[in-house]
Amino acid sequence: MTLKAMKGIQNCEHVYYESYTSPVLGHDVLEELSGAFGSSRVEKVKREFVEDGSKILEVAKNSSAALVCSGDPMVATTHQELRTRALRQGIQTRILHGSSVLCAVGGELGLHSYNFGRVVTMTREPMQYTAYETVFRNLLNGLHSTILLEWDESSNFFLEPKSAAKALAEAEKDLKQEIFNSETLLLVVSRLGSENQSISASRSLEELQRLELGAPPHVIVVPGKLHFTEREALGALLDREPSTFPDNSAKASRLSSRMVGKYSIKTMAALANARKAAANSDLRINFNDIFENVECYTQDAQRFLNEGKEELAVLSIGYAEGLLDSLRFGDQLEFEW
Amino acid sequence: MTLKAMKGIQNCEHVYYESYTSPVLGHDVLEELSGAFGSSRVEKVKREFVEDGSKILEVAKNSSAALVCSGDPMVATTHQELRTRALRQGIQTRILHGSSVLCAVGGELGLHSYNFGRVVTMTREPMQYTAYETVFRNLLNGLHSTILLEWDESSNFFLEPKSAAKALAEAEKDLKQEIFNSETLLLVVSRLGSENQSISASRSLEELQRLELGAPPHVIVVPGKLHFTEREALGALLDREPSTFPDNSAKASRLSSRMVGKYSIKTMAALANARKAAANSDLRINFNDIFENVECYTQDAQRFLNEGKEELAVLSIGYAEGLLDSLRFGDQLEFEW
Repeated sequence: MTLKAMKGIQNCEHVYYESYTSPVLGHDVLEELSGAFGSSRVEKVKREFVEDGSKILEVAKNSSAALVCSGDPMVATTHQELRTRALRQGIQTRILHGSSVLCAVGGELGLHSYNFGRVVTMTREPMQYTAYETVFRNLLNGLHSTILLEWDESSNFFLEPKSAAKALAEAEKDLKQEIFNSETLLLVVSRLGSENQSISASRSLEELQRLELGAPPHVIVVPGKLHFTEREALGALLDREPSTFPDNSAKASRLSSRMVGKYSIKTMAALANARKAAANSDLRINFNDIFENVECYTQDAQRFLNEGKEELAVLSIGYAEGLLDSLRFGDQLEFEW
Repeated sequence: MTLKAMKGIQNCEHVYYESYTSPVLGHDVLEELSGAFGSSRVEKVKREFVEDGSKILEVAKNSSAALVCSGDPMVATTHQELRTRALRQGIQTRILHGSSVLCAVGGELGLHSYNFGRVVTMTREPMQYTAYETVFRNLLNGLHSTILLEWDESSNFFLEPKSAAKALAEAEKDLKQEIFNSETLLLVVSRLGSENQSISASRSLEELQRLELGAPPHVIVVPGKLHFTEREALGALLDREPSTFPDNSAKASRLSSRMVGKYSIKTMAALANARKAAANSDLRINFNDIFENVECYTQDAQRFLNEGKEELAVLSIGYAEGLLDSLRFGDQLEFEW
């Protein structure tokens, strides 16, 4: 807790502490709060108290109340909703920010905060497609992904990294973007911020399923493209040669580039067949102009792809195919694709 | 500063404080640190001290040293690099996390942290294309963008939101993705975390350039798709009807969908002309099969687009165009596109 938060809470008549949105490790917050503010003012509350919210709003209307949690308070949507209700009821609110795993995890791993994409949470529910798609989209943009793992205080349930890894492996089997294979760098920060924090790396989802990571909580990070300073930091943290970390984002290729690669080969092969067939044709057709254009547009497709103009690349290869196929649809030439 | 950080620093023989990576508002940190740890232990250091780093590493090797800054310490890459060097030299390090604007800004605006995309910093240097492209990519995925603004302690320079807005308007003129127009929601959090923090909204980059926002620092947020609870929070914060906030991400359309829209119309018009021309042709060509395929593939393109299969949509419309254009290249038909 920040000094500013301590000072802010000092003036509150009622201090509520909830620990269900974010776990606290290694110390008894309730005891600390009671010690600092007096046990008569401090009360530990459950999920229902925060979600229902009517009690704290009622108290805040007539006096002053603090809701204390771990992490940055507004990362949990429940707290945001409670604040919206307070604002609507004309209750003055103030957020006293704390440090959040969302920022801390990058720092602990030596990864730059501006290289992170969207964060995602994995749960017991089969939501792995969402996580997989989020990681895929981030990788396409070269970005790192933070995967938070479900925690349920009431049943003391933490989603284990091995369960998350298994679910992601299943998603890979189903969605087939080929982002996870036997050379994928996966990082786990365990017990972040505590005395026995640790950092682990594995090279595949299968290896991650076998890792013994100790007590929760854990956060998984799937790095994207690594800046050389990020490689050096990881190398120093994991005692490994910086150049040995794979670039996960290099594996993530857009459908467009796979399309252009595949169809370029097919089109050029079909073009060779069409040229042979045209040599024996007596139709009054300017085959040559058509064939030259097929060739040009196939080359253009590759060029556009290299320039990062993916839509134009796909348009060009489609166009080249169409030019050639028109000759078959119109019964003008017979040749194989 | 957190209680944990205070405790951690307590054991350090040397406490260095730097304020160039992140500004501090409203209180004199040096004075506070000196008060807490004794002025003989505390020293304010400049940029060069941190970037060079040799002094603090030397001290840490033989005794213990703390480097204090505002925000989350590892958000600045300079700190990450210093830590990597320490690790390599066998110096034990520990990060005592703080709250960061990167997490706090979402909370202050009632926007969910998992709806944020990549963060970007704008500087005096003409880097607006990077910022524009980052916002564009985030909007395509429906995500919010945080735009941090350059701060240079040595010249006490803060990039003003109006300068950033002007630069983004120029980028819009050049890059033409049409993401900023007269109905774009732009949010600014000014002096975040201080007593006189304020939140402002404007509906265009032009309006933002005219806004008087007071003293720095400021952070700009370009929201993407708004969840209804985010709308409600913004409505309560800005005293505005939640439904009146525009969805900025609806404006961001992929090049592929613009291509398919435009080329579908052109292809269907050309097809009508080709049909007329074919009626007068005496060539032994099965025009009908070609025309039917042009029509089918144009319809397919629209269908693929609606299904979110953008690459297939572009491939289809390119193919349809090629089928038809082949008749012109081969001198089989003359018709207008």
